[in-house]
Amino acid sequence: MTNNLKGIAASKGIAIAKAFVLEQPDMDIEKKSVDDVEAEVNRFNEAVKNAKNELKLIKEKTLKEMGEEQAEIFSAHLLVLEDPEILDGVTAKIKEEQLNAEYAMKEMADMYVTMFEGMDNEYMKERAADIRDVSQRVLLHLLGIENTSLASIQDETVVIAEDLTPSDTAQLNLDYVLGFAADIGGRTSHSAIMARSMEIPAVVGTKEATASISTGDTIIVDGMEGNVLINPEESVIETYKEKLNDYLRQKEEWAKLVNEPSVTTDDHRVELAANIGTPDDMDGVLSNGAEGIGLYRTEFLYMGRNELPKEEEQFEAYKEVLERMEGKPVVIRTLDIGGDKELPYLDLPKELNPFLGFRAIRLCLEETDMFRTQLRALLRASAFGTLKIMFPMVATVEEVREAKAILEDVKQELLKEGHTVSDEVEVGIMVEIPSTAVAADIFAKEVDFFSIGTNDLIQYTLAADRMSEKVAHLYQPYHPAILRLVKNVIDAAHKEGKWAGMCGEMAGEETAVPLLLGLGLDEFSMSATSVLPARSQIRHLSKKETETLAEEAIQLSTENEVAELVNRKGFIVS
Amino acid sequence: MTNNLKGIAASKGIAIAKAFVLEQPDMDIEKKSVDDVEAEVNRFNEAVKNAKNELKLIKEKTLKEMGEEQAEIFSAHLLVLEDPEILDGVTAKIKEEQLNAEYAMKEMADMYVTMFEGMDNEYMKERAADIRDVSQRVLLHLLGIENTSLASIQDETVVIAEDLTPSDTAQLNLDYVLGFAADIGGRTSHSAIMARSMEIPAVVGTKEATASISTGDTIIVDGMEGNVLINPEESVIETYKEKLNDYLRQKEEWAKLVNEPSVTTDDHRVELAANIGTPDDMDGVLSNGAEGIGLYRTEFLYMGRNELPKEEEQFEAYKEVLERMEGKPVVIRTLDIGGDKELPYLDLPKELNPFLGFRAIRLCLEETDMFRTQLRALLRASAFGTLKIMFPMVATVEEVREAKAILEDVKQELLKEGHTVSDEVEVGIMVEIPSTAVAADIFAKEVDFFSIGTNDLIQYTLAADRMSEKVAHLYQPYHPAILRLVKNVIDAAHKEGKWAGMCGEMAGEETAVPLLLGLGLDEFSMSATSVLPARSQIRHLSKKETETLAEEAIQLSTENEVAELVNRKGFIVS
Repeated sequence: MTNNLKGIAASKGIAIAKAFVLEQPDMDIEKKSVDDVEAEVNRFNEAVKNAKNELKLIKEKTLKEMGEEQAEIFSAHLLVLEDPEILDGVTAKIKEEQLNAEYAMKEMADMYVTMFEGMDNEYMKERAADIRDVSQRVLLHLLGIENTSLASIQDETVVIAEDLTPSDTAQLNLDYVLGFAADIGGRTSHSAIMARSMEIPAVVGTKEATASISTGDTIIVDGMEGNVLINPEESVIETYKEKLNDYLRQKEEWAKLVNEPSVTTDDHRVELAANIGTPDDMDGVLSNGAEGIGLYRTEFLYMGRNELPKEEEQFEAYKEVLERMEGKPVVIRTLDIGGDKELPYLDLPKELNPFLGFRAIRLCLEETDMFRTQLRALLRASAFGTLKIMFPMVATVEEVREAKAILEDVKQELLKEGHTVSDEVEVGIMVEIPSTAVAADIFAKEVDFFSIGTNDLIQYTLAADRMSEKVAHLYQPYHPAILRLVKNVIDAAHKEGKWAGMCGEMAGEETAVPLLLGLGLDEFSMSATSVLPARSQIRHLSKKETETLAEEAIQLSTENEVAELVNRKGFIVS
Repeated sequence: MTNNLKGIAASKGIAIAKAFVLEQPDMDIEKKSVDDVEAEVNRFNEAVKNAKNELKLIKEKTLKEMGEEQAEIFSAHLLVLEDPEILDGVTAKIKEEQLNAEYAMKEMADMYVTMFEGMDNEYMKERAADIRDVSQRVLLHLLGIENTSLASIQDETVVIAEDLTPSDTAQLNLDYVLGFAADIGGRTSHSAIMARSMEIPAVVGTKEATASISTGDTIIVDGMEGNVLINPEESVIETYKEKLNDYLRQKEEWAKLVNEPSVTTDDHRVELAANIGTPDDMDGVLSNGAEGIGLYRTEFLYMGRNELPKEEEQFEAYKEVLERMEGKPVVIRTLDIGGDKELPYLDLPKELNPFLGFRAIRLCLEETDMFRTQLRALLRASAFGTLKIMFPMVATVEEVREAKAILEDVKQELLKEGHTVSDEVEVGIMVEIPSTAVAADIFAKEVDFFSIGTNDLIQYTLAADRMSEKVAHLYQPYHPAILRLVKNVIDAAHKEGKWAGMCGEMAGEETAVPLLLGLGLDEFSMSATSVLPARSQIRHLSKKETETLAEEAIQLSTENEVAELVNRKGFIVS
């Protein structure tokens, strides 16, 4: 009997293979009394040392295969194993209560996990997941269990798991693992993000994949529609094989567009750029034919470490990207930290509503030493390519003026020191706060460009936290108010002879592309893997027709009406 | 030597009197071992009983003198003393550890206070303050200390305190206490709100009032400018006496306007309405000559209790206000709970960003039983006056349609049951989410009126939590984007023949009044005590001139430029 599961489509593609159901290793931990506490402490220290060595290897492997963002997770794990509060706590438990190391470690980990999970703070909840993952690693060493089940996969397989931890993902052999399905997770959960960056199909949030599926079952993971089919009939498998072939053929078609321009049927050209987190993302940018970097997030330079990154280190990270882009535009966003993204060494205040709080440019205008260091690194790197500097979370004209004054001051300082600084550096702002979108005409006089950050703009404009499940239905990219704000920003830029881009997720969505084209957007910045599909779509569209579409859409009352219009009029080409 | 303190002007007016520095009672609590634990438990229960009786008296006194909102605080205190987790915890400590009741109570209270204060949640922090206040009351009973210092004041006095707790405030004899100054607090802290509702001048956040001032010092509390003068020279006292007289004269002038219309020099009439929380606020509404209720918050009916309020209780609360307004308009807002305002019995989800979360109409459209009960009570009350129903936190047209459909369904149900329901009930929405302000033309087709909720609209539009000190400078009522949104909302309403009001704090501010008048606002709703000053100002203004002012203001770049313009052009009359 077939029993199909519905989940959340987390990563595109279709995988058809036998299931491998990931079992959690058996880790029953008994409480024992030990006599030789010194020996037990040594045993604990040895396990920590081994776990750390292992983590360093995993981190390097991940860095090579998946890039900095994913590797940072293991830096965080290493920090846990260097935390004196945790290490000394376990040692004290062993010594004072004559406990076995396993039990002492588990007790300590459970305490932190409970504490962090109880906090009203996504960041701390992630720390709970880190501690769970890393303590399991230490326990496996203490118990002498080799947890190589995922690494042992030697046949084409679909992995079925409750969830995939970072440690699990790092073990996946992509030659054999064709896709995965998980019980929990959403579109932005860790496992989903990993799946997209590994480009393997995935469905998450199925609730009961591990309960319904046994190792050896034949599984279809449909990452387009979010379906998981268990032991389907042969005819269904055939249908999906055709779907898969269609998808692969389409990918081949897309691949031919790597060096083609992003131009409409009536010769209107736009720029399709990529969003990146670190220089390691550059391979994907180049292989997907992005015409620029529309958003270089600089947060990862600052995260998962104990102190601020030095000017030299930043300079190298910016220079590398500018050089590899060979003169194509690179928009680098200054530090957008604070809110939910914390830096332990900055000692930021705890806030009731971090998304409405002290972050990004607000923080930088106060922590000016930190800000100046970043601006110095940026301006020095400007000699090596086409740099555009972008300030995030701007709400008032005063902030722009203040930030530009500091930038100019830093430039003069660098010139005095004999550094080369480009004179062509454009300075722009993210438009992600409603006040800035509403008063875009005022801001357009002060900057060289706008980049609309829809992720934040939508959540502020609709007052709906995109992380909160209970209001997820209000996170509406096609709400008429969003379209009007986008139009207002683009029109304001053009009136002053400036350009307007977009670097939120919306820029790469197939429903959005025709609307944004019609509204006159100049630059679309998205994840590298979306560039070719978007280019393909644009090359099928007429600018004139998208203009008519946008005019009509902007008069509608609801998001549903807008999405329905775009679809009905045939603007979604694929 | 004079040593003047600068603080935050929390409540208008000037007080000149001798200082009374409030000392915290000496409560050194020793840990003792008790033999007869049963007797100790009895002693504890006795103290709790006495504290509860005392709280009930205070609650009634507060209800009479200050209204429901203030009295609710003591309901919360009573709930603490009925919490089995706390009571049983103390009893267990006494029994199992043979502890004295004082020490057991203090330990238990400290634990809760530490726990609640550590939470990222303003609501829980307030609970910490409640527990601190209430446990002190129990301890005073256990120790046999009479804490009557504030009640003992028999001369004209300015009270100086680190902070004023609700228990302290309830003891103030307003015949003698002319004003107060506190070390801590801001414009919206409990003590500041109390001062305004008692109409006594207050300065809070002075940091060092208790350290710098001794009982018997002569003190001037200047609640207009936020200054506290210590032992000023006679000439300074004379100056302030004149200022005080000017202020009192002005208040007398204002008082003459109670029955006058709110009309400009060129005969443009607007409505000045009041915001209320409970029927107990009606005395103030009538004595200040408000022409309507622009916002009746219904949250207090739902707070500080263990279950939802019944239809009958709500009906009475709405009917009373409608009757006392004798046909003048009463805008009642449906439940705006959730976010930072929690109801323990509703079991709402914890959210990372409560201001961007599951609250108000979002909650009501899911908890439809609760919503229908309120709508039933409202519609039944509609027979007793001019009711207008307002939905809060509307972000999409779908929400309006859904809420209106439920309202219509409830109406039909009531008519079938034989109830009388007015056919003239207007249905409107709060405009407090940017999407609604931006797309106001779409919403204007669906509703009878708008009321702009600036407190939220400003914080969402600028993405700045008004509770967060670090971004307080970004909470800008006169940001050009806010003025444009307000204009957009008013214009959209008028185009459809509807009216537009405002019920945020901004509506009563003297800088805002001329701008809003110029933008065409029809109804200004504010705290009752602001109605007469606003009426006085409006009666000095020409509508035509305010229109020119608004046109000019809306073209400016920054909040400062706008405020400066209003001031420079002489629109602030007082």
